[in-house]
Amino acid sequence: MPSTEQKLAAVHGYVAAFESGSGEAAAALFADDATVEDPVGTPIKQGRSEILEFYSGAMATGAKLSLLGDPRCAGDYVAFPFTVTLEWGGQTSVVEVIDTFRLNDEGKITEMRAYWGSGNMKAG
Amino acid sequence: MPSTEQKLAAVHGYVAAFESGSGEAAAALFADDATVEDPVGTPIKQGRSEILEFYSGAMATGAKLSLLGDPRCAGDYVAFPFTVTLEWGGQTSVVEVIDTFRLNDEGKITEMRAYWGSGNMKAG
Repeated sequence: MPSTEQKLAAVHGYVAAFESGSGEAAAALFADDATVEDPVGTPIKQGRSEILEFYSGAMATGAKLSLLGDPRCAGDYVAFPFTVTLEWGGQTSVVEVIDTFRLNDEGKITEMRAYWGSGNMKAG
Repeated sequence: MPSTEQKLAAVHGYVAAFESGSGEAAAALFADDATVEDPVGTPIKQGRSEILEFYSGAMATGAKLSLLGDPRCAGDYVAFPFTVTLEWGGQTSVVEVIDTFRLNDEGKITEMRAYWGSGNMKAG
């Protein structure tokens, strides 16, 4: 079972990876065979190369994350609400998202799911 | 695939069930064979009678829910952050939670998972 400290470190490491614009730093938080579903209901990315490609693309939008309250730790999961601010078609957009991470005993993310839809996108 | 309207109705119906203190109203939002895991990592309640028993107990604490921002709809899921305010040992406690609901095509909840831990409990 991952510790509370490992779960919180994963969340804060994720926010920091976006702050520094590093797809490599984001991908390094994941286990080798991890899955990423963003948003939930779309095709799942699996494994280090697909996950690195996904986050490199995300960083190219200039996306920055800001937590909306404390992460919720439960079992081997952590869920957290946040905003993503990014440039889209020449204007700033803000998207309200909830992510869940499942972690392994080494504190690596094995499953990430992102919950957001068109109703969560606002002009910045 | 459940509609956005069905997902939002489930969330608002859930908040309203707590507002009226009705375990029956909460249980009625669920499909017959639904599962409830609250908090994530604890034994799963399954089926109408276990779910009704769970929510009847929750209502006995006087718990009231307040949404913290808009629900996030994605695929056949909706995730939402909220506070639970309840009386515990003679004092008011506030817990910050994130719930995810999975819905079927009839708009009934088939899976509920609640993410919260000891770090999310505050004195009211």
